[in-house]
Amino acid sequence: MTARRLEEVRRRLSELRLHAIVVTTLPHVQYLTGFSGSHGVCVVTAQEQFFFSDGRYKEQAPQEIRDFRIVISAGSLFQAMQKKRVLSAKERVGFEAQHLTVSDLRHLQKLFPKAKFVPTTTLMEEIAAVKDDGEIAAIKEAVSISDKVFEKLLENVRDGIRESEVAAQISYLHRTLGADADAFEPIVASGTRGALPHARASHKAIRKGEMVTLDFGCRVRGYNSDLTRTICVGKPSDEMRTIYDVVKQAQEAAIASACSGMKAKTLDGIARKHIVSKGYGKYFTHSLGHGLGHEVHELPRISRLSKDVLKEKNVVTVEPGIYVPGVGGVRIEDDVVIRNGSCEVLNHSPKDLLMV
Amino acid sequence: MTARRLEEVRRRLSELRLHAIVVTTLPHVQYLTGFSGSHGVCVVTAQEQFFFSDGRYKEQAPQEIRDFRIVISAGSLFQAMQKKRVLSAKERVGFEAQHLTVSDLRHLQKLFPKAKFVPTTTLMEEIAAVKDDGEIAAIKEAVSISDKVFEKLLENVRDGIRESEVAAQISYLHRTLGADADAFEPIVASGTRGALPHARASHKAIRKGEMVTLDFGCRVRGYNSDLTRTICVGKPSDEMRTIYDVVKQAQEAAIASACSGMKAKTLDGIARKHIVSKGYGKYFTHSLGHGLGHEVHELPRISRLSKDVLKEKNVVTVEPGIYVPGVGGVRIEDDVVIRNGSCEVLNHSPKDLLMV
Repeated sequence: MTARRLEEVRRRLSELRLHAIVVTTLPHVQYLTGFSGSHGVCVVTAQEQFFFSDGRYKEQAPQEIRDFRIVISAGSLFQAMQKKRVLSAKERVGFEAQHLTVSDLRHLQKLFPKAKFVPTTTLMEEIAAVKDDGEIAAIKEAVSISDKVFEKLLENVRDGIRESEVAAQISYLHRTLGADADAFEPIVASGTRGALPHARASHKAIRKGEMVTLDFGCRVRGYNSDLTRTICVGKPSDEMRTIYDVVKQAQEAAIASACSGMKAKTLDGIARKHIVSKGYGKYFTHSLGHGLGHEVHELPRISRLSKDVLKEKNVVTVEPGIYVPGVGGVRIEDDVVIRNGSCEVLNHSPKDLLMV
Repeated sequence: MTARRLEEVRRRLSELRLHAIVVTTLPHVQYLTGFSGSHGVCVVTAQEQFFFSDGRYKEQAPQEIRDFRIVISAGSLFQAMQKKRVLSAKERVGFEAQHLTVSDLRHLQKLFPKAKFVPTTTLMEEIAAVKDDGEIAAIKEAVSISDKVFEKLLENVRDGIRESEVAAQISYLHRTLGADADAFEPIVASGTRGALPHARASHKAIRKGEMVTLDFGCRVRGYNSDLTRTICVGKPSDEMRTIYDVVKQAQEAAIASACSGMKAKTLDGIARKHIVSKGYGKYFTHSLGHGLGHEVHELPRISRLSKDVLKEKNVVTVEPGIYVPGVGGVRIEDDVVIRNGSCEVLNHSPKDLLMV
């Protein structure tokens, strides 16, 4: 696994006439090495690859990482790189310009005065956007745990329960059903709070007649799931029922069309066009979806402005929503694997409007 | 509250002969504005202050933020700044060099060609390191919830329970006892895994005779707690009991000495010296503690190399540990407020070796 990824990195280094790259973004370090800790840097040159971390990971790093020379350092990781003379020559060295801080670049430039540091953008992101079967299997495991959580929530969400209690149950269930952690803070937004697309769970009690948007995900072996369903406690108003149907139709239309070779903005357009045609266009205030993997938000971007093209084995979310201030909101989200001519939906949670 | 913080920012701007600062680090944006969302940027000039965010926060931002001109943008926040002409003059503009990415700086430089962007380091961090009473109250609330969680865990941690189940209970209890979220992924490390200072909870079952390190914290109104206790299921070995006593003595010695005006490295030295004197020096592989607030790791740093001096109303952790590979580990951590001549310990969880 590591070998194929390193090969791909080296192919791009050679395209960009780079002698090496410093990978400082933790999810990318994890992607390349398999390391699960919280502090590490990689250097990949044409011939060699190094992993640097600190004393906390002296035991853990060798357990998790093969194929890399592991260097455990008492001081800064960049200083350890200097000691090992990994970038000491007069060479072109790539760095992750969208992640590396201005201070860190200055520090590198000081430590390696001969090297010419060259900004790269989305180099690692593009490699990581196409998943291998092992990665898809891990995401499937995470998705299946989130599906089970949703099933449990259908029994537990009732008139009077607090949003925060529901969020607490989500976290508890994720972990006891086998996940390593939540992928992100669960979103539980009921009633008019549903009009805040990214509201966290509050201590508000959920009331009869309110729709509840549940957006949550978990992590398995470093890979994430991301699922949204909107349910109703009791019966919804006619307006909310209409909104629900529009979102569901938009989501299903997008899923029916998604396949490799398609422009991501075309896919966004399919869902958006439907919502616009029903008069709710201005209430669909975010993009249709995003890649999913080691990070909850990865490439490709599925938005109006995206220049990405969907590729086979991209894993992406499809999540249109309508948010009407003072009224409420609905979002429905699945995780799908892009295939040739179609997509594979990983979630199995029902999408009909469920009244609990 | 916002007013005092803005005043402090402006005092430093004037010291550094800066006309404005772009604050891009989310915890600092939250600190200045009270915003609780996930995407926002501030610009503070000598006369005015602006907050920029995207469509998702159209409703939420005005609910949370006073004193700032709020600009909601459909495109990039930096472009919105350009439209509002906030940095259009030929002026010296500070940025957060330890946080701003190389790409973002280039983007700013393109959009504001007249401005001279000047790196600042720890400007916001130093302001945020000294807490006001409202902040201390929020941290106290978070700490008191974590104390209650620990009390519950004493009833629940037993021979046979999995580390992951304990972590799930921590998350569930935090939220149901009133926290907004975990401060970080709970650490539950039992037996020889205790020798990995930052092990996450695994699916390993905890066994009789094993020590269990529990390191967890929660968030209340954006402020964090961070508590560690090490307990034993049944009876510990003589060696682990000795290690426990050494860590406890080191922790208590540090707490007895901590006060404003003291060098942070002196405090680290007090705990370290004790551990070294008992022959475990090489197994205390991290620093003694860190500031705590909007972020789990803030200034001041309490380490051997720290140049920080403790100030009144710093809130810091005191957390020595000993980690013996193949044997196990012990860490004990409290959160304290630095006062004149002493410190105030916020936790009330017992520190004697508890056998459950």
